[in-house]
Amino acid sequence: MELDFVAALLARIPADPRLEVPPGDDAAVLRPPAERRSVVTTDMLMESVDFVLGPDCTPRMVGHKALAVNLSDLAAMAARPEVAVAAVALPRAHGDAIGRGLIDGILALALEHGVTLAGGDTNAWDGPLVISITAIGSVAPGRAWRRDGAQPGDLLVVSGACGGSLLGRHLAVTPRVREALAIANRFDVHAAIDLSDGLSLDLARMMQASGSGAILDLPSIPIHPDAVRMAALPGDDRSPLEHALSDGEDFELLLAVPPDDARRLAAEGTEITGTPFTVIGEVVAGGGLSARTADGRTTSLTPRGYEHAFDQ
Amino acid sequence: MELDFVAALLARIPADPRLEVPPGDDAAVLRPPAERRSVVTTDMLMESVDFVLGPDCTPRMVGHKALAVNLSDLAAMAARPEVAVAAVALPRAHGDAIGRGLIDGILALALEHGVTLAGGDTNAWDGPLVISITAIGSVAPGRAWRRDGAQPGDLLVVSGACGGSLLGRHLAVTPRVREALAIANRFDVHAAIDLSDGLSLDLARMMQASGSGAILDLPSIPIHPDAVRMAALPGDDRSPLEHALSDGEDFELLLAVPPDDARRLAAEGTEITGTPFTVIGEVVAGGGLSARTADGRTTSLTPRGYEHAFDQ
Repeated sequence: MELDFVAALLARIPADPRLEVPPGDDAAVLRPPAERRSVVTTDMLMESVDFVLGPDCTPRMVGHKALAVNLSDLAAMAARPEVAVAAVALPRAHGDAIGRGLIDGILALALEHGVTLAGGDTNAWDGPLVISITAIGSVAPGRAWRRDGAQPGDLLVVSGACGGSLLGRHLAVTPRVREALAIANRFDVHAAIDLSDGLSLDLARMMQASGSGAILDLPSIPIHPDAVRMAALPGDDRSPLEHALSDGEDFELLLAVPPDDARRLAAEGTEITGTPFTVIGEVVAGGGLSARTADGRTTSLTPRGYEHAFDQ
Repeated sequence: MELDFVAALLARIPADPRLEVPPGDDAAVLRPPAERRSVVTTDMLMESVDFVLGPDCTPRMVGHKALAVNLSDLAAMAARPEVAVAAVALPRAHGDAIGRGLIDGILALALEHGVTLAGGDTNAWDGPLVISITAIGSVAPGRAWRRDGAQPGDLLVVSGACGGSLLGRHLAVTPRVREALAIANRFDVHAAIDLSDGLSLDLARMMQASGSGAILDLPSIPIHPDAVRMAALPGDDRSPLEHALSDGEDFELLLAVPPDDARRLAAEGTEITGTPFTVIGEVVAGGGLSARTADGRTTSLTPRGYEHAFDQ
C-alpha cells in the first residue's frame, strides 16, 4: 500500500474557515486575518543530523519536533500560529509506517495550537527521512518581536530553564507559543529570540543584531535538571552552567525587556503563563558578551553553541 | 569557509516593501496585499530522485527548478508570486559550491518573477542534496483557479506542448506565471492544474476533483519536438503521442474553459501571452477518460504518468 503522506495528514485536519481553497489543489488559498501581518518561517529536519530513528525517537516524535521548532520561531515573533505546510522525503523502506507516525505527531501539536494544515509534498526515496515544515502565523502590524530591538538598560529575561536538552527535550519540544502571546499583550518587549542553538550563542546573535552588548549574571541563570544530570554523566567535562550556556535546543524565549516590565514579568510571569520567567542579565552599550560571577567579578564570555558546518 | 546558504541568498535580494520585518529574524513578517488572498504551495526536490548532479545538471539548474515548480503551482491557481522561503540540506562535500550555484538559479528566476526571498533554513549533512521551497502568492478573493470546477461542456485547453521533458525541460522549467495572469483577466476559466506528472494523469485528477469525465481529441494534442526525439531513441517503445500523454514535468497549464472563451483563448492566446494555447478535448458528464482518434472512434483511456511509490 502506498501512503500519500500529505493527503493522509490533511484528511485528519478539520475544515477551517481560514482556507478559501482547501488543500488538495495545486496550492491552498488562505484568508489572511484582516489587518494582520503574516509571519513565515521554515525548518528542515534530517535523519542522522537532527534525530536518529529508534526506540527513543519514534516517527511520531519527529513529526512533533518538525512542527514544534517552527512554532517556536513564531513564538519568538509573538505571532499566533495559523497555517502550516509539510514536505517529506520518506525512506522507501517502512515509509508507510514512518509517514503515519509523523502524521500523529504533527496532528497532535497542530490541534493543540490551532494550526491548520494547508498542503504539502509527499516524496519517497532511498535516502534517510527528511521533513521540512513551513509555518505561517499572524501578528498585528508593527507588533512582531524582532531580535534587533534590544536597548542598553533592558534586562534579559529567559523562560523556563536551560541545558541538557539532549536528554529528551530536544525531541519533546514545547514551543512557547501561549507564553509569547500572553506576554505580548501585557509587557513591553524590545527584542526576542528562541533558544535553538544555545543561550550564549543566541544571545550573541540578538546583541549583534541590536548593536549592543550584554552582561549575563551567571548565578541567576535557571539551570535545567537535565543539565545537572548531563554534567554528572561519565566522560562529561562540562559543568551544569556550561551546559545551560551552550547546549542547543532549549527552545525557550530569550527577551530584552525594559527594567520595570522585566521585573514585573519575572514576578508575574509564572502565574500568567504557567512557565517561570527569570531575569538573567542586562543589555549594555557596546558589543560582546560578559559574565558576572557570584563574587561580582565580570569577565568576557565567548558564545558557544551549535553551528552548522561543512567541508569545502 | 562555511556558507550560510540562506544568508547568502538573502544578501542578494533587494529590500522589498512587502516585508515588514526582513529576513534574518526568527521569521519574516509579510504585509499581505490588501484585499487579496494568500496562496501557499511547497515542493521538495531530492538528489537522485528529481535530479542527478553532473555536467548536464548543475546546482544552478537545481535552484532554478526548485523555485520554478513552486511558481508553476501558483500559476495553476492564477496567483501572482510574492514571496518564497527555502530550506536546504547541503552535502558536506562541496556544499559551499553547491549552495552558491543554487543561489544563482533561485535568484535569477525570483527576480524575473518579482519574488522576494523571506528566509529559510541552512543545513549540512553527509546525505544527498535536498531543497524544499515554499512559495506564497496572492489572488483576489474568489478568483483562484481551482481544479474542481470543470463542468460538462467545457473545453480542455493546454498551453505549450507536451512530452519528452526529460531531454532538458524537466530542469529548465518555464513556469507559466505570466500566461496565467494574462489569461485570468481575459477569459473565464472553470478549472486549472499544472502538468507535473503527465497530461493524462493530471487530467484524470482534475476530472476526479470536478466529478466529471473527459474526452481527449488525440490528433489535436500538441506534441513537443522532444517527445518525437525521445520516441526515436533506441530502446524507446512509446510513440510521440504516448510520451505527450504520460511524460511528467511538462509544467504546462491544463484548463477547463467554457466553449466560447476556449475558442477565443486558442485563437488569441499566443498573441496575448507569447505561448500557444490549444483545445485538446472536452469535459463530459460521468467519470473516466476517453480518447478520440483521427477516425472519430472513441476508446477508454487509462491515465498514465509519474506516481510516487515506496515499499511497505
